[in-house]
Amino acid sequence: MSALESIRAPLGFLRTALPTVPHHDLLESEQDWWSTAALPISSAIDRAGIPWVRMFDRSGKRVDEILYPAEYYTMLRRGYRAGVIWRALEEKSLIPSYLLIYAISFYDPGICCPYTVSLGTALPLSKYGSAETQGRFLPHLLSKDDSVWQGATWMTEIEGGSDLGAGVKTIARPAGDRWLLTGDKYFASNAHAELAVAAARPEGALPGVRGLALFLVPRFRSDGSLNLSIRRLKDKIATRSVPTGEIELRESEAYLLGSADSGIYLILEVLNLSRVANSVVSVALAQRAMADALAYAECRAAFGKRILDHPLLHHQFQARLHSLRSAFALAWESVRLLDQVWTEHPPYSDRYHLFRLVAHLAKYWTAEFAIDTAKWTMEVHGGLGTLAEFGVERWLREAMILAIWEGTSHRQILDGLEVMERKQAHKLLFAHLAGSAPSHEVRELEADIQRLLTLPTDQKEVQAEPLFRRLAFFTASHLSS
Amino acid sequence: MSALESIRAPLGFLRTALPTVPHHDLLESEQDWWSTAALPISSAIDRAGIPWVRMFDRSGKRVDEILYPAEYYTMLRRGYRAGVIWRALEEKSLIPSYLLIYAISFYDPGICCPYTVSLGTALPLSKYGSAETQGRFLPHLLSKDDSVWQGATWMTEIEGGSDLGAGVKTIARPAGDRWLLTGDKYFASNAHAELAVAAARPEGALPGVRGLALFLVPRFRSDGSLNLSIRRLKDKIATRSVPTGEIELRESEAYLLGSADSGIYLILEVLNLSRVANSVVSVALAQRAMADALAYAECRAAFGKRILDHPLLHHQFQARLHSLRSAFALAWESVRLLDQVWTEHPPYSDRYHLFRLVAHLAKYWTAEFAIDTAKWTMEVHGGLGTLAEFGVERWLREAMILAIWEGTSHRQILDGLEVMERKQAHKLLFAHLAGSAPSHEVRELEADIQRLLTLPTDQKEVQAEPLFRRLAFFTASHLSS
Amino acid sequence: MSALESIRAPLGFLRTALPTVPHHDLLESEQDWWSTAALPISSAIDRAGIPWVRMFDRSGKRVDEILYPAEYYTMLRRGYRAGVIWRALEEKSLIPSYLLIYAISFYDPGICCPYTVSLGTALPLSKYGSAETQGRFLPHLLSKDDSVWQGATWMTEIEGGSDLGAGVKTIARPAGDRWLLTGDKYFASNAHAELAVAAARPEGALPGVRGLALFLVPRFRSDGSLNLSIRRLKDKIATRSVPTGEIELRESEAYLLGSADSGIYLILEVLNLSRVANSVVSVALAQRAMADALAYAECRAAFGKRILDHPLLHHQFQARLHSLRSAFALAWESVRLLDQVWTEHPPYSDRYHLFRLVAHLAKYWTAEFAIDTAKWTMEVHGGLGTLAEFGVERWLREAMILAIWEGTSHRQILDGLEVMERKQAHKLLFAHLAGSAPSHEVRELEADIQRLLTLPTDQKEVQAEPLFRRLAFFTASHLSS
Amino acid sequence: MSALESIRAPLGFLRTALPTVPHHDLLESEQDWWSTAALPISSAIDRAGIPWVRMFDRSGKRVDEILYPAEYYTMLRRGYRAGVIWRALEEKSLIPSYLLIYAISFYDPGICCPYTVSLGTALPLSKYGSAETQGRFLPHLLSKDDSVWQGATWMTEIEGGSDLGAGVKTIARPAGDRWLLTGDKYFASNAHAELAVAAARPEGALPGVRGLALFLVPRFRSDGSLNLSIRRLKDKIATRSVPTGEIELRESEAYLLGSADSGIYLILEVLNLSRVANSVVSVALAQRAMADALAYAECRAAFGKRILDHPLLHHQFQARLHSLRSAFALAWESVRLLDQVWTEHPPYSDRYHLFRLVAHLAKYWTAEFAIDTAKWTMEVHGGLGTLAEFGVERWLREAMILAIWEGTSHRQILDGLEVMERKQAHKLLFAHLAGSAPSHEVRELEADIQRLLTLPTDQKEVQAEPLFRRLAFFTASHLSS
Repeated sequence: MSALESIRAPLGFLRTALPTVPHHDLLESEQDWWSTAALPISSAIDRAGIPWVRMFDRSGKRVDEILYPAEYYTMLRRGYRAGVIWRALEEKSLIPSYLLIYAISFYDPGICCPYTVSLGTALPLSKYGSAETQGRFLPHLLSKDDSVWQGATWMTEIEGGSDLGAGVKTIARPAGDRWLLTGDKYFASNAHAELAVAAARPEGALPGVRGLALFLVPRFRSDGSLNLSIRRLKDKIATRSVPTGEIELRESEAYLLGSADSGIYLILEVLNLSRVANSVVSVALAQRAMADALAYAECRAAFGKRILDHPLLHHQFQARLHSLRSAFALAWESVRLLDQVWTEHPPYSDRYHLFRLVAHLAKYWTAEFAIDTAKWTMEVHGGLGTLAEFGVERWLREAMILAIWEGTSHRQILDGLEVMERKQAHKLLFAHLAGSAPSHEVRELEADIQRLLTLPTDQKEVQAEPLFRRLAFFTASHLSS
Repeated sequence: MSALESIRAPLGFLRTALPTVPHHDLLESEQDWWSTAALPISSAIDRAGIPWVRMFDRSGKRVDEILYPAEYYTMLRRGYRAGVIWRALEEKSLIPSYLLIYAISFYDPGICCPYTVSLGTALPLSKYGSAETQGRFLPHLLSKDDSVWQGATWMTEIEGGSDLGAGVKTIARPAGDRWLLTGDKYFASNAHAELAVAAARPEGALPGVRGLALFLVPRFRSDGSLNLSIRRLKDKIATRSVPTGEIELRESEAYLLGSADSGIYLILEVLNLSRVANSVVSVALAQRAMADALAYAECRAAFGKRILDHPLLHHQFQARLHSLRSAFALAWESVRLLDQVWTEHPPYSDRYHLFRLVAHLAKYWTAEFAIDTAKWTMEVHGGLGTLAEFGVERWLREAMILAIWEGTSHRQILDGLEVMERKQAHKLLFAHLAGSAPSHEVRELEADIQRLLTLPTDQKEVQAEPLFRRLAFFTASHLSS
Repeated sequence: MSALESIRAPLGFLRTALPTVPHHDLLESEQDWWSTAALPISSAIDRAGIPWVRMFDRSGKRVDEILYPAEYYTMLRRGYRAGVIWRALEEKSLIPSYLLIYAISFYDPGICCPYTVSLGTALPLSKYGSAETQGRFLPHLLSKDDSVWQGATWMTEIEGGSDLGAGVKTIARPAGDRWLLTGDKYFASNAHAELAVAAARPEGALPGVRGLALFLVPRFRSDGSLNLSIRRLKDKIATRSVPTGEIELRESEAYLLGSADSGIYLILEVLNLSRVANSVVSVALAQRAMADALAYAECRAAFGKRILDHPLLHHQFQARLHSLRSAFALAWESVRLLDQVWTEHPPYSDRYHLFRLVAHLAKYWTAEFAIDTAKWTMEVHGGLGTLAEFGVERWLREAMILAIWEGTSHRQILDGLEVMERKQAHKLLFAHLAGSAPSHEVRELEADIQRLLTLPTDQKEVQAEPLFRRLAFFTASHLSS
Repeated sequence: MSALESIRAPLGFLRTALPTVPHHDLLESEQDWWSTAALPISSAIDRAGIPWVRMFDRSGKRVDEILYPAEYYTMLRRGYRAGVIWRALEEKSLIPSYLLIYAISFYDPGICCPYTVSLGTALPLSKYGSAETQGRFLPHLLSKDDSVWQGATWMTEIEGGSDLGAGVKTIARPAGDRWLLTGDKYFASNAHAELAVAAARPEGALPGVRGLALFLVPRFRSDGSLNLSIRRLKDKIATRSVPTGEIELRESEAYLLGSADSGIYLILEVLNLSRVANSVVSVALAQRAMADALAYAECRAAFGKRILDHPLLHHQFQARLHSLRSAFALAWESVRLLDQVWTEHPPYSDRYHLFRLVAHLAKYWTAEFAIDTAKWTMEVHGGLGTLAEFGVERWLREAMILAIWEGTSHRQILDGLEVMERKQAHKLLFAHLAGSAPSHEVRELEADIQRLLTLPTDQKEVQAEPLFRRLAFFTASHLSS
């Protein structure tokens, strides 16, 4: 039983999964707060469904305020103050951010989305913003008190998010020292953020992804008026602590990041941040679901003993704990690699391409694991698992979203295939794992991948899935052993 | 593409999956109605969440009415009129009932629960009721017009449903020609039914399952007053077209079915009916989810072509269609076997034990398949799949319930193990499959099962899952080939 | 008690309040249907709150469909088929329409709004539409089957509805044989109607009400695409059976009614129709609330007898029935007068001005009476009156809306004052009442009004309310005596 | 305009309405907190509708917890800490409690119900509890920190609250040093309170009100288990910050207050406290609605000027401010009188009878005024007033409940009549007002009342209402002048 004890709280597990836990005291104090004060808040937000939007104030002026309960902001700001954003730039490392994301998403997987997209705003601004733009906006994002601004990442339009080259119809027109954007963003995370990064196509730019640019879009114009409209919030099945909205940009003021023809690189760098966060949150969610299952299995009896003590269930707990460790190792490897490459500019190093493959494997594998664990937790609860009253069905809803946003499994497979094909990333991975994985296994897997890559495109895609899954399992296993 | 065409509607698939489709014209006319009139009703019921209960009328009298919209009853009664109950007794066959359940649950998986529990009331009444009890109640359940009564099956109490011997605390006291029941039923399907079967323990009976008896409990006492209270409806994540409630029995009038010491057999016979229905509904749900995925994949484009025409996705459709056929074959075999044994009384034949094993395999396998397919359909829809607006997340919620009620996967495995151990049901199964399965495969599997069965109990349970899964896959594959 | 019997159903009261009831059999058959089939539908719609809007279909195309349950349309279409619109033009009389509105709004006061605004679309089209426009649209509005189109009246924008001259910012630009409208309508009744009349200002027109024109705006452009967007539905406290939305017109195709500089007259003619409907609905609602109070008072006892038989309550029932008759007489007089003048074009007759004053008095008086009665009905129910479960709080919510839309009490007083001042409408009224009102009372009231009209503007407005109320009471009393 | 300024916040108005405001600094600090921190909490609670009840914990044990958001308790406890209960006993005066209730209910009229019923528990316990009972429970109710217990007053059952003699069916059986209560309370305010007072009939007691007794019922038995069940929370139209539930008492432990045959006096003393609170809350609510109307009228323009500057509306503001002062004066007189008599035991003094009449007049008059003002505020807002988004419709819902609970208007009239008839309370009132009211008016009114009191019962009740209203208006006017 003692091994299972580690799953009851995030720090307990981190201690078993990392050689040392940086920022241990910070994490402990956060864990204390979230496990007491934040739990009922998070549940209440989930039960409440999508919040209201107040579109007009009493004078008839459009305001587009999102009416979360006041306690939502208490919870939300806690993470900002703890440093989920400011530490990344102050400590020049992403490790503290992702540690906080792990610890917090054990309690609320949705609220880590605002943190992640704020990171996805602050980091590109710090890398690609002009001095003036940085001076204007960065201090707000890095504030250590409740005046902190939030960021947001608005890429996807109604045509869909996978094929951004075709899907982004938002147009950008230059207007003096800034740009004016017009278009509709369909999945706009953190819709009430004070500052967002948004993909748009400058007038006259190339078609496809080459013609995209990345812009900063503040919530208010420089004259103080609203710079955009929130058409509505999405009625999502979960992650209700992030307000995902539809945003209407109408000649909205914007500031170019980087150059007008390099947007796709910046977009993908933003996506790297959120994809890695997705993996970290997926593992934390799986741990949480297991912790709930454990608490239940300890207090329920059938056929004369606690259900935890029934051999089949007990075995499932042990096996799943093993998988949890593998999944964490894979996710954390994507964190460690990203921490090494996130300051790179194109053209990127091999380390970056290795990171990309690991990030695809981790996104794919951890989300599948989170769903499977959430489903299992519901089954452990039997009929109670299907009731809103007991709260565990929430983990399946949350996990299902994790499997879809930042790219579905389908997309991870195909993008993983591409980075293997173009950059030989699988070879980089095998070299990276050298020492921890037996060489005959590596040779066999490498040969199978080479075979796959030489197939005609159609065949390659059709056959990619089992091999990608095998590679993910292989990598996770050897990282955690 | 032509093979995929079969999944668009239930009858299309049934035509490919059965050598002939009995009651073809009836099913066609039902399909026409449900695919037009019932679709918006079913969606509206799901969106509305749990219905209100009106507990008191204006005079202050307790009435406990469930306030579904009027159109709910239009939809519900359609199935009764089509014969989902009366045909079983009139045609002395369960085939028409399960065909209707397949066709209807493609459109609304929840509404088949009222049908199933009505079947689970009418059949035991017809087998085990006294002449007087039958005369009094059976005609109402078999009515062919809107005066039809509904049935219900109320077994589970708050202690849980797996270990009924310990979990049923409801007490029955004899009172002249009837009994009086007192206790709380926690998962009471179809809580507003006019007649229910309920498990209870006669005063002074043995502890454990041997002391259980099965009773008929009408909604109204013979003096016309309410015979029970609906404490509340459960806030389930899905199947909102069945009102599952908590029922308070307080000296509620009841009529014994069979003898006071044979209840557990009757309870398991009732469970047979619903477990088989669960398998049929699971397959229909999977087909429905696939049909939605197909419609979406046909109308969405990425990278210059319909997403249906992308090789990986196209391959997934074909592979999943193959699995759908296997799953149906397994589910339908449980229907065919049940149709042969449902009139048996204990002691049961080998055919009955064969049925039990197939029913466990089918319940387990089809529910897993339904969940996996619903999850995949959400992923095919990308971000839209996570939105309530697009309705496909519903299939995951519905499927998740199917995996839990009538016994979780865990329970199917352990009960399947028991019937193999005690009745050698796996041997009966291999004999049954002789001719369709290659004999070396059979021999290998049989040997592995024998090995498992000789292990100490703890080890046996721990190792049961992969073998049970293998047996389910094996059986499904050979039945559909 | 026999007099109270008349309030149980609308036709019963109409028989006592009108010398003969035209279309008696039609009304009886409608009453039969609404009192049985429609009652649960109407309650379910009210309980459900605002319906969903499906903004995008699965292909990503904007569709803006309002997701009422299917049964809503069953209920809604019933009135159209009965002739609430087509009879007005076929029988060249508004009497059948308002009789149907009375009878139906006893069961659902909200659903009479779609009928009224459809009338407010069909009648101006028939009076002011070009032959081509009429040929294109009118048959759809007058259809006697379920293909019937609905109308809508969209005037108000966010600046408010009283001062349309300042509040209407929607701009109309000529474009060949049609116009293109751009602007936001804030209170757009029946937002999913196939055809609406909308107020807009042609480019370059005069400021103020003189520069307004009235346009027909179809839901779909001539090329079949959506001609407008529904930004959202309003979350109103009642009348949930009318979908009131915010409409975004963006270069929306439109057809001018009448001339571009006479819009204000057409707008006011449309308002006449709905203001009179508002009075009729208010009285029907008051009757309904009383009917509910009666049913309650008959089945509840306190201090040893039915509460209906307590002297104070019994007296209140009698007094309120008397007021109901007065209120109906006043409302119906506005119907009768409108029926005489609705075909007039400007410049209008004295009869028209008399109508206007009576319509103001009726709107004011009946809405106040409806609120007061709804409040009283809640009090009769005691604590149960405050519970959603018992449904009578709905009447207060519905009544409160009736007191506000089509002009608040405030507005009726000031507009009533204006028609007295400019057109001497009070003298026309006294002449109209000659014979039924005692001449000394008339003389006294007329003198007081004359005195009021000679006051300085500020004083006149300040002192107007009690005199206006007195005039309303006087008129109602003498019309019903 | 300067007079209108006083309505913007509660303390501003109290300063104009009272010669000195006791506890001024305390009230100011409370006002500061409630006007900032509590406002969004209160709105969120109202929007959320009735909270969930968690009936079972994960072990299957009944817990009946009410799931308000965490911030609800922050808000709720604020009032207890400020001293709404403990000051009454520590300062031996009810003035601080009612001042706090006025100030707080300006921001949330519902939350003053928990405070009032806690007062209604603590005071009778301190007057009538045995030393042992007081020692056991009173310190919890008077705690100055967050460990404070709440009280509750559970009288009404489904038969209705006016005729308690017939309506209370709950039975009390003696059991050693305590009693066991069995019955259902239908309107149980503050259903999750740690301690309630409840009316019940000891076995064998007289029928009617003479046979009632008042008991203390703790939430938990002395063995720590739940002492009662919350069947459900009521879905009320307002006051959502008080959880009103249906309570099932089943052999619930209870402690007698006073003697077993004096319950009706104790019940009425409890009712005195809440009836006076109701008047105070009604006036605060009216002030709040006016403050909202003022804010709106200042920021909206029509016909070229702020709507506040239109003569009719401006006049209405002034007139209503005058009425507000009268209503407050009447309500506060009931506070002052209660403060003088609340420690009396039966038989009561003339002062007590005077209090009763004033309390009836105040309850009646202030609730009517609150409704009328809330309705007017909605009208001032025009269409926006009917939208949930703008929040002013809430005041009508809240006011409507104030007019019903603690006795409808009907009941105030009849009970007022009784105290005039039996105790000549009108004469006591006229003596009390001597000096402030002109003697000829007094004489005329007194004569009319005497005439009324000599009528036969039926006639007396029928004619009571206008005279009662006149007496209320007369009293309010002369108290405020």
